[in-house]
Amino acid sequence: MQVVHSIADLRTRIKEYRRKHDQSVGFVPTMGYLHEGHVSLLRKARTQSGLVVLSIFVNPLQFGPGEDFERYPRNTEKDLQLAEAAGADLVFMPTVDEMYPTPIRTTVSVTGLTSRLCGASRPGHFDGVATVVSKLFHIVQPDQAFFGLKDAQQIAVIEQMVQDLNLDIEIVPCPTLREADGLAMSSRNVYLSEQERKQALVLSQSLEKVKEFIQSHPSFSSEELVQLVSSHISTAPLATIDYVEALGYPTLEPFEIGHHPASIIVALAVKFGKTRLIDNLIIQVRK
Amino acid sequence: MQVVHSIADLRTRIKEYRRKHDQSVGFVPTMGYLHEGHVSLLRKARTQSGLVVLSIFVNPLQFGPGEDFERYPRNTEKDLQLAEAAGADLVFMPTVDEMYPTPIRTTVSVTGLTSRLCGASRPGHFDGVATVVSKLFHIVQPDQAFFGLKDAQQIAVIEQMVQDLNLDIEIVPCPTLREADGLAMSSRNVYLSEQERKQALVLSQSLEKVKEFIQSHPSFSSEELVQLVSSHISTAPLATIDYVEALGYPTLEPFEIGHHPASIIVALAVKFGKTRLIDNLIIQVRK
Repeated sequence: MQVVHSIADLRTRIKEYRRKHDQSVGFVPTMGYLHEGHVSLLRKARTQSGLVVLSIFVNPLQFGPGEDFERYPRNTEKDLQLAEAAGADLVFMPTVDEMYPTPIRTTVSVTGLTSRLCGASRPGHFDGVATVVSKLFHIVQPDQAFFGLKDAQQIAVIEQMVQDLNLDIEIVPCPTLREADGLAMSSRNVYLSEQERKQALVLSQSLEKVKEFIQSHPSFSSEELVQLVSSHISTAPLATIDYVEALGYPTLEPFEIGHHPASIIVALAVKFGKTRLIDNLIIQVRK
Repeated sequence: MQVVHSIADLRTRIKEYRRKHDQSVGFVPTMGYLHEGHVSLLRKARTQSGLVVLSIFVNPLQFGPGEDFERYPRNTEKDLQLAEAAGADLVFMPTVDEMYPTPIRTTVSVTGLTSRLCGASRPGHFDGVATVVSKLFHIVQPDQAFFGLKDAQQIAVIEQMVQDLNLDIEIVPCPTLREADGLAMSSRNVYLSEQERKQALVLSQSLEKVKEFIQSHPSFSSEELVQLVSSHISTAPLATIDYVEALGYPTLEPFEIGHHPASIIVALAVKFGKTRLIDNLIIQVRK
């Protein structure tokens, strides 16, 4: 496994690989502080791609004022161990200056999909995501890119961008990985106090309840689903709900009772102290 | 020379070329109705690139309401003759449906460079340009792309986008071509009546006057240059000035007397009836 810090160096190595091999390049973009979720993306890439490229870059552009850019957890040594064990070939770790040598004047924005959920609570967040992913895609020029479905809205945004801008890249959505007790894996889980960690279980539990509810209720409204999730989360005294929404997926559009689309998402963002966690359930619904 | 209409077909042919040849791919994006200016871009590409790709696509996204999208001149037969004679290898002529099969939700915008000149008179124009050029760059994946300096602001915007988004493409600016009497070549010149055509000469003449003025005046203000151009244009009764500006190039920022940057642009847009013409002079100035 090779670790590179400069764009020029990365490009040279990938071009070199492509000259010698007729195999695909797979890409896993991350902000580091890797957990089993990231590892599962690398393993998936390892099965599909000839060259597996991991990027580790905490992108300032996608953090709002007062968000956790400065304190976002970092642990390069452990990241590199996990990456190597999972079969990464090339790790790209640019500095902020390497990615933004001059103030960036170009923005990639995706409308429609970004007005709800995290897009509503974190204005500008998805512009920052689309812009940096666009940069990384141009730098790496992968054939496939692997993203975790915990960030389901991010995947919807990136798939829309890829389609609209004719990027020749296959987006591979991968399932959310969970701790043994159900909590969705996240680099931000490390922020949680012991008490918060225990109470954070209400998130995955509430989504399990939705799953059961939908299975036993052929007709349901988005309000019922939201109500079910919200009331369960409210049993945790340390939880403050940012949003709970039930929408079509990947359109992220509201639906009427009896007219739900084939695939829906129930998504939530909840704060425990300063720590904001997200989780979601994407479910195929019988019509 | 091959003519292709679908993105998939174009990609297949370019990939095929790259598999067989270790030479570069050059790209000349146009809106068709080719004139000698476009031909000069193709000839330039012919000298620098192994495969010369021309696109002909009148992009609705960069036309505002009330602009000339519907009546923009088209002449495919003549375009293909000129392209072949100039040495194009592949011509990409997509329909609007091929480029925009579903309503586009993704926008590429470049701030700072687009608030003045044509950006001010044509709101949204450069978002449309940056977005379609981004699409075309992803479709063709060229090594070099050739643009005419008549659209100097467009080149500044595209160079900024390429730098900010790490596109691995060299932008090659090419000189404006002019009719024997000095009028900058443009597909829109065909709109001009005989009288308008005669009076349109004031545009290039006024820029010639600026050139002479700067050569004999080591210190000058942007206001002086603008005044010189505007007063000459005003001698043409059919001319209505949209803008005349003198700015740094490629920053497109205003300058103070005695503190001009190394390179400046004097740019103008003038209407003759419904026809809007642009022209500019980019000049290196001794400090």
